[in-house]
Amino acid sequence: MQEKQYLMIPGPTPVPPSVVAAMSRPMIGHRSEDFAALHRRIQEKIRQVFQTSQEVFILTNSGTGGLETAVANVISPGDRVLALVTGNFGERFANIARAYGAEVDEVNFGWGNPVGLSVVREKLARNPGYKAVLATQNETSTGVLNDIAGIGALVAETPALLLVDGVSGVGGIEIKMDEWHVDILVTASQKAMMLPPGLAMIGVSPKAWAVIEENRSPRFYFSLPAAKKALAKWNTAYTPNVALFFGLDAALDMMLAEGLENVYRRHLLLAKATRAAVKALGLSLLAADHCASPTVTAVHSPGGIAADDLRKVLREEFGITFAGGQGILKGKIFRIAHMGYAGKMDVLTAISGLEMALARLGYPVELGKGVRAAQEVFLGRDV
Amino acid sequence: MQEKQYLMIPGPTPVPPSVVAAMSRPMIGHRSEDFAALHRRIQEKIRQVFQTSQEVFILTNSGTGGLETAVANVISPGDRVLALVTGNFGERFANIARAYGAEVDEVNFGWGNPVGLSVVREKLARNPGYKAVLATQNETSTGVLNDIAGIGALVAETPALLLVDGVSGVGGIEIKMDEWHVDILVTASQKAMMLPPGLAMIGVSPKAWAVIEENRSPRFYFSLPAAKKALAKWNTAYTPNVALFFGLDAALDMMLAEGLENVYRRHLLLAKATRAAVKALGLSLLAADHCASPTVTAVHSPGGIAADDLRKVLREEFGITFAGGQGILKGKIFRIAHMGYAGKMDVLTAISGLEMALARLGYPVELGKGVRAAQEVFLGRDV
Repeated sequence: MQEKQYLMIPGPTPVPPSVVAAMSRPMIGHRSEDFAALHRRIQEKIRQVFQTSQEVFILTNSGTGGLETAVANVISPGDRVLALVTGNFGERFANIARAYGAEVDEVNFGWGNPVGLSVVREKLARNPGYKAVLATQNETSTGVLNDIAGIGALVAETPALLLVDGVSGVGGIEIKMDEWHVDILVTASQKAMMLPPGLAMIGVSPKAWAVIEENRSPRFYFSLPAAKKALAKWNTAYTPNVALFFGLDAALDMMLAEGLENVYRRHLLLAKATRAAVKALGLSLLAADHCASPTVTAVHSPGGIAADDLRKVLREEFGITFAGGQGILKGKIFRIAHMGYAGKMDVLTAISGLEMALARLGYPVELGKGVRAAQEVFLGRDV
Repeated sequence: MQEKQYLMIPGPTPVPPSVVAAMSRPMIGHRSEDFAALHRRIQEKIRQVFQTSQEVFILTNSGTGGLETAVANVISPGDRVLALVTGNFGERFANIARAYGAEVDEVNFGWGNPVGLSVVREKLARNPGYKAVLATQNETSTGVLNDIAGIGALVAETPALLLVDGVSGVGGIEIKMDEWHVDILVTASQKAMMLPPGLAMIGVSPKAWAVIEENRSPRFYFSLPAAKKALAKWNTAYTPNVALFFGLDAALDMMLAEGLENVYRRHLLLAKATRAAVKALGLSLLAADHCASPTVTAVHSPGGIAADDLRKVLREEFGITFAGGQGILKGKIFRIAHMGYAGKMDVLTAISGLEMALARLGYPVELGKGVRAAQEVFLGRDV
């Protein structure tokens, strides 16, 4: 039986049946009253997820399109930008700024490490002219969570805007856009938001709007002023992915029914159990406990076993798909997502599968030991 | 997050996504050429599952309706019937025969035991006038597999017809309708056939047709002659459940793509792993190894723990639904299905959940021990 699959990559993530059902509803016109009502419902709910009183724009493109929207509306050629890089997606954000002509001051904290606030403080103090600071909430490539509240407090004291890639975090990890002084917060549909890919969501602060209105970079599809004008009438500037709007409405209902605090606690619990299991199996985690991502866990493949061989056995024999490493970590790590529509039994599936795949490849694993460590976390016996 | 559910009862079973997609196709008329083509495709495939060269009728009712169809077309008031009972569904089959006026000679082998062939041999020798023998392939209430080949060989030497309830077996456990001398074989959609409830499938031997044509019991919806006349034109006598026909077509494609031998081997492997895990946890199985069902495993709840309390914790805390006991076993056992759309990771989910639920209720369980026993079976290390 080949069909039963356990998708445990950090996006796209599994889509809940109620969301699939919502997306299967008959199509409606995107200039209709029905769509306006749908858009309005979504707006009220997604602001709670972003913890903002500002508008959140729902754009029909991927997360990268969302990041480009942030850059295109803020950066003009020659602008100085501070890019806080902790992995592949931090690098991508910096590259988008370069594509728009920014002079990028890139600080690489090393893959597996978080942003160091003292470095940020020093950089901001020495360079008062930054137009923007680019940061990643949850670095998907390394499973590292960055301290956005800490970065935000520092950037808020400067004229620079804080642009945050929240693609693999928002919806699974708490973020307080307004309180933490995030000026532009971007996320996407296919991660903790439990939807298929195709939508980016972007929140914009008043401080950012002042810059956006002055910006002269070329932009049409990615125009935030156009999006703002349309949203005033519960509309979108260009044709939206209507099915994903149906799905987003349902996914937000699920998240709010669970309660956002519970959603965040669930992700923390799943990460804790995954990490306990990995440690019990004698494997090494890429990120330290104090900066561990609640949504994705990166693990060093043990000596003598190629991460991609392990992933192949998992996929072919057990139907489980883990992500591999990216960039400099390619072939060296595997990543287990516990993001979005994920629960305790998914972690136990991941770990029991991992144990069997390790055994298949000759790693001296004690079967059931990782599972036990995760079970102890779920039972509250891990103290 | 309440929605993620692991349905592990012996029917309805989980429906594969490709089957759900097939059932979502737009409705067609049941007197159309399209329906006739669909019905013909299904007919060619389902005969392979039944291992028969005879027609298999697809009826729009549940499995019980299928059993009643078997009885209604064969039994006339006053007919003598031998009912081989090994649990709740054997009793139901006998009760249906009684409802049609049969004089039922019921042999109860005890819940948890299989049919004893020597008893059948003796009964048939002493009572040459049986019109029919009623047997259950896989007794869902106890997780016992009966020897249909053995029963069939004995019944074939008499004028009696062998009517077999294959509801929780066919599609997951090999059955050779023609070779094993089964005269009427009944199954239903919601078990190993991987569909929602709503269809019964019934195969009829030439020996049975001779009886059916003479039978005068009242029957209209359940008329096999009417079904036969309709099938000659790839039609059905009465309005069929068209969506389930779409689904059956897709489910049969899945089964044949996997290969029926592989389907049966998979079920045997899942049962073996489940039983190994249960034993490793120190729990007691209801059925002995030699008559263990490949599709459902019944387990005695350990002393001091009510089976239904265990099931409640599993359902509420882990989203896992096991079945409880029926009849005299109510409250005493729980039943884990590994039936239809089920794989290795489902067994590991069931066992890791069971371990946690036992721990919650104070049973001295070594977490991970049952999981390890199942993993060893899957890795071929259990010898």
